[in-house]
Amino acid sequence: MSKALPLDLAALRAAHARIAPAVIRTAQWDNDPLSEELGVALQLKLENLQRTGSFKIRGATHKIDRLLASGARPAGVIAASAGNHAQGVARAAGLAGLPATVVMPLNAPLTKLQACRALGAQVVLHGDTLEQAADEARRLAADQALVFLHPYDDWDVIAGQASCGLEMLEDAPDMSVAIVPLGGGGLIAGIALALKLQRPDIRVIGVQTEAVAPYRHYLRDGRLEAVATGAHTIADGIKVKRPGELTCRVIAAWVDEIVTVDDNAIAEAIVTLLERTHTIGEGAGVVGLAALMQRKIALSPSDRVVCVISGGNVDMSLVGRSIDYGLASSGRLMSVSVVVSDAPGHLLRILRSVAGLGINIRHVEHRRGELHVPVGMTEIILQMETRDSAHQQELLAHFAAEGLAAKNLVVA
Amino acid sequence: MSKALPLDLAALRAAHARIAPAVIRTAQWDNDPLSEELGVALQLKLENLQRTGSFKIRGATHKIDRLLASGARPAGVIAASAGNHAQGVARAAGLAGLPATVVMPLNAPLTKLQACRALGAQVVLHGDTLEQAADEARRLAADQALVFLHPYDDWDVIAGQASCGLEMLEDAPDMSVAIVPLGGGGLIAGIALALKLQRPDIRVIGVQTEAVAPYRHYLRDGRLEAVATGAHTIADGIKVKRPGELTCRVIAAWVDEIVTVDDNAIAEAIVTLLERTHTIGEGAGVVGLAALMQRKIALSPSDRVVCVISGGNVDMSLVGRSIDYGLASSGRLMSVSVVVSDAPGHLLRILRSVAGLGINIRHVEHRRGELHVPVGMTEIILQMETRDSAHQQELLAHFAAEGLAAKNLVVA
Repeated sequence: MSKALPLDLAALRAAHARIAPAVIRTAQWDNDPLSEELGVALQLKLENLQRTGSFKIRGATHKIDRLLASGARPAGVIAASAGNHAQGVARAAGLAGLPATVVMPLNAPLTKLQACRALGAQVVLHGDTLEQAADEARRLAADQALVFLHPYDDWDVIAGQASCGLEMLEDAPDMSVAIVPLGGGGLIAGIALALKLQRPDIRVIGVQTEAVAPYRHYLRDGRLEAVATGAHTIADGIKVKRPGELTCRVIAAWVDEIVTVDDNAIAEAIVTLLERTHTIGEGAGVVGLAALMQRKIALSPSDRVVCVISGGNVDMSLVGRSIDYGLASSGRLMSVSVVVSDAPGHLLRILRSVAGLGINIRHVEHRRGELHVPVGMTEIILQMETRDSAHQQELLAHFAAEGLAAKNLVVA
Repeated sequence: MSKALPLDLAALRAAHARIAPAVIRTAQWDNDPLSEELGVALQLKLENLQRTGSFKIRGATHKIDRLLASGARPAGVIAASAGNHAQGVARAAGLAGLPATVVMPLNAPLTKLQACRALGAQVVLHGDTLEQAADEARRLAADQALVFLHPYDDWDVIAGQASCGLEMLEDAPDMSVAIVPLGGGGLIAGIALALKLQRPDIRVIGVQTEAVAPYRHYLRDGRLEAVATGAHTIADGIKVKRPGELTCRVIAAWVDEIVTVDDNAIAEAIVTLLERTHTIGEGAGVVGLAALMQRKIALSPSDRVVCVISGGNVDMSLVGRSIDYGLASSGRLMSVSVVVSDAPGHLLRILRSVAGLGINIRHVEHRRGELHVPVGMTEIILQMETRDSAHQQELLAHFAAEGLAAKNLVVA
């Protein structure tokens, strides 16, 4: 496939200069503890700390800038999104003094809806899916002379996202690997162009979520994989079934590898990011870190890796769930079943061991009348906060020494 | 009380220059959504993104720098802390090539212990309380010719923390109010000096946690309030019962007001910070934001407020609990009791309303055999994720229309 694309380095640099007043030059952090844990020299490009909480403001700002520079004077702009694109467009349009309309599916989270309204956009709720919302947005665009802003399949948008790549290389001139979340492909297309046009030796790696990975084999056979209907992932920001035409061209030309990670790995990466950087990433935002943690990317000791954390707009209940998952998988949350005589004093006996080891209890449940619990016995299920897996083993040893039949219900 | 103190502006500026290579000049963010919500021009000084996760690295680095500059060649340094001071000392000593020992109570969280070890410190576990750990540290210091580093009651430490205040004013020359977490007093003493020596008109406000507030009436009558034995707070970083002598002198001279916030307010502030800035603050770190959210500080529309988020080292289980609390208090988590006939089909009937409104269920429980549940009936308790309180009212209206006796168990 030809590498001749309509964007050159000068165009990307011009885009970067144009959007600079509206976007934050986000921090790119060395993170010693993470680098040590993963055994790789790692920097994180923290676009989760970007204005509106994701990189999307870059592309949206540039698109609107080009629109106005072209002399077009639309009545306004319109986008369909329940997420980061919506907020990026709302803020960029607001700064440009252009009315913005955002069409969201009826079930869009209230927080996202409020965020767009706070940024001055008009929010229209329509349809059950993003596709239906997009159809409505195109209809409204035609009807009201608004310009429809595509979230990724647009050269001006890709040039805007490229600014992230320019900053990455400026801040890490010796980088050898870039790891980038991949959904529609706008971010990785921009970053790949920004890096490869300067340093074709840098490996650019895209990361998709296992459940929605149309690009999985794209670099091998040029085919986009069909995504199962109803596919679910906590990385909703990259849950894109139909990638763009332009982004496919750039990816075919410049991306070196594509890997996938599953939701469990993503949840662990959310918690690791929170603990190590004190910042929060959304599911889609941390897939690169998840891929590193899962050793999905072959690296040599001399590699200098920059991993993009692309966004931080995440539902708080999902954060809570990810934390519990991360605590369990790191030995800090434990569920145990203990079967004892159904008589006074047995729970107390169990709790003496638990309290003696400084273990906090989250939940206690008694079960009887089930076939796995003999008559005259009761099963007590305890959910507890432990220090690590050694601490858990210690508790189980205590139970065994007391003749208690205990079973660890959470086994990684 | 005399304002003659041994630190002048030149000394603070010299300290800032000395520690600059070791500390991050943390971001000080305008946060539009937060400013709008709180109705005040607000910047957050994000020391939760500082190296080692809190401002403590500033004072520790400066103390060790002065120690070495004095010509002292101790065998090493030692500190007692289960938290941020430990990590600050470990990293600062490591950078200076000085062996560091940290004494922690036996029940110190494993994550903190591991963090100090990863920073190269030797960790000694001793005693049940921080006081016992401190006694052991002083004993070891005498025994092994180590220098004991006090966490706050030391002019060199205070001068180090002052660097935070110098940066605040440089980044917000028009600031009129500084809001600072207050425990031992090292941070606020440093910041107050840095600000007041340049701009005595800036109001400096300290925030303590309700349960441990020795300084509560200190500015009024010069007395430190006794703290109840066993006082508990989620702001463990400022759970300091005996403030310092030097810090008291600076606070008496330069701090304008002291306010307190309770743990519920702190939990809400943790969630708000997470949602609005995508960064995590520890309990002690967010008390200033909590005070603003609780309208504990009288502000005029012309005020320019800088609020310090002093640290981000927080236990993940506490974050999970804070999220649940924040979700409940903002109408996104709801517990309802519904009493129905103990017969087939009733749970289904309830769930039709729930699912029809797009509400996700977290937990279902049936209760019988309690006096508040008539015989032949069962109480069903549902914990659910809702969009906001209007959504909750909608569900209750549905239940009422169906003749279901429902009671909202979470009422703010």
